[in-house]
Amino acid sequence: MVIDQTRLPHALVLGKWTTLEDAARGIETMQVRGAPLIGVAAVHGVALALRDDASDDGLAKAVHRLRATRPTAVNLAWALDRCERELAPLAVSERLAAGRELALVVAVEDADTCRAVGLAALPTLSGERRPVQVLTHCNAGWLATVEWGTALAPVYLAHEAGVPVHVWVSETRPRNQGAALTAWELGRAGVPHTVVVDSACGQLMRNGMVHVCLVGADRIAANGDVANKVGTYLKALAAHDCGVPFYVLAPTSTIDHDTPDGSVIPIEERDASEVLALGGVAVTPSGTAARNWAFDITPARLITGIITERGMVPATTEGIASLR
Amino acid sequence: MVIDQTRLPHALVLGKWTTLEDAARGIETMQVRGAPLIGVAAVHGVALALRDDASDDGLAKAVHRLRATRPTAVNLAWALDRCERELAPLAVSERLAAGRELALVVAVEDADTCRAVGLAALPTLSGERRPVQVLTHCNAGWLATVEWGTALAPVYLAHEAGVPVHVWVSETRPRNQGAALTAWELGRAGVPHTVVVDSACGQLMRNGMVHVCLVGADRIAANGDVANKVGTYLKALAAHDCGVPFYVLAPTSTIDHDTPDGSVIPIEERDASEVLALGGVAVTPSGTAARNWAFDITPARLITGIITERGMVPATTEGIASLR
Repeated sequence: MVIDQTRLPHALVLGKWTTLEDAARGIETMQVRGAPLIGVAAVHGVALALRDDASDDGLAKAVHRLRATRPTAVNLAWALDRCERELAPLAVSERLAAGRELALVVAVEDADTCRAVGLAALPTLSGERRPVQVLTHCNAGWLATVEWGTALAPVYLAHEAGVPVHVWVSETRPRNQGAALTAWELGRAGVPHTVVVDSACGQLMRNGMVHVCLVGADRIAANGDVANKVGTYLKALAAHDCGVPFYVLAPTSTIDHDTPDGSVIPIEERDASEVLALGGVAVTPSGTAARNWAFDITPARLITGIITERGMVPATTEGIASLR
Repeated sequence: MVIDQTRLPHALVLGKWTTLEDAARGIETMQVRGAPLIGVAAVHGVALALRDDASDDGLAKAVHRLRATRPTAVNLAWALDRCERELAPLAVSERLAAGRELALVVAVEDADTCRAVGLAALPTLSGERRPVQVLTHCNAGWLATVEWGTALAPVYLAHEAGVPVHVWVSETRPRNQGAALTAWELGRAGVPHTVVVDSACGQLMRNGMVHVCLVGADRIAANGDVANKVGTYLKALAAHDCGVPFYVLAPTSTIDHDTPDGSVIPIEERDASEVLALGGVAVTPSGTAARNWAFDITPARLITGIITERGMVPATTEGIASLR
């Protein structure tokens, strides 16, 4: 069962994927999104494909189809590489059971990993200022993973431990993952939060209303540059200008040691219609052109630290290399 | 007759104000918006008030009511100060005619001033790169003034002169003045343009897709700090980081020599409902809290130059003082 995230926050719709194509379309249309969850969903998709065709060709076709769904998050490639590595050497008759097992394993691992990310990031919420004022962008909570989330994992852990936390949630145009998904998640968990438009985040930081920025990542390059939801770069600039620490939280599977820096990370461009209308309401005159890049690159120099399940490292070539 | 800008881009609705309260409510509800136009509209409102009551008390009440409509744009205070200065000394019997005359004068002056701003800013569009790639925020076109606009004035002049120009229009949440108003204006004038979400502007500049940023202003402090539509600060940070020139275009009536720096400019906070829904479509779970600051402060150090009807000056205390 998967939560159809395109229906949140107004409806909690559970879908059931039964074929490879269900999984591939579910990832493409962003029923599931968030780099870690995309990886888990891809393994699930491979397992579904193997039910129909567990041959070498069937496995290769499934991996090929899923790899083409979304280009930026490297967790997708990481998960599919793992499927090939672990499943291809097996006898055809063993692959389906092994694929199902692997889908469970990556889901459990993801939850454990995210909890470890959260524990490693807890010190970023320490200090005397209460409530801790956190700013996040997009959704890097449990909806983006299997459990806990990445950027929100320390928030949930702190909240459970009784530490007062308040989260500034940036709307995250054009798909409003902040306003729709992060606000929904935090509301269910009882974590105090306030939504602002993306453009207001600079104003918040200039006025000392943010103690720490916590964001996720879709791909981390070998030099520490980070691809994340479009708008992350602007928030990192403001944090840097205002002396607010800016942390990127992600599992090590989000690191792409083969990508030297952010300039060569492929940036997904999605359909202009996502910009031109919201919930069926046109926001522009008819016939208006729009462009819609889903991600941007935040240069390593603006990042205070990268926090994975193995702890915090600086956003430098040395820091990233230490996680190989 | 006024264009009700809350109905654009889907309907061109002309309204007629007949009372002071029509004008005051029209400014408050943003039927008219844009710092220069607010100033012109306020003088128009005073003239309407004088028709009902041209006494000292009537003039004072009108000025008081209009001054309370919106706090950030100093053009409003500038226009109302001018009404008091020019109308209060007159005999009561002369005030209505003089008020009507002044409303016409400020409108004509505004158009002349904006054209002069545009001419002074034309050199920012020079160079060999064609089309010139301009990025603007919010709406600082003719809808924000009487004619020409401020930030868009050089764009219109260049377009009329046959210089190829393309404008990146940032959506400008939460009221979408970019997507709704600037796109509408540019479309009517035949100027090529493309809408992007506010968050995409950093990505555009990082990729060399913007040659110059042109924005308007709601108030310019004595040290060159600028209050403008929320999100301007983030764009200025990205421009600075990417080596893109960032110009603020405004009439000298937008300069507040009595405000030492941006930290003391009052920032209007508008209703949270503007963030929570768009065109009647809720973007957040019900019960979600939001904050909605309409403006932010861009520090002078990020501004390449301030261009008024008197030419360009640096965004410094000396530069601003030279325009006294």
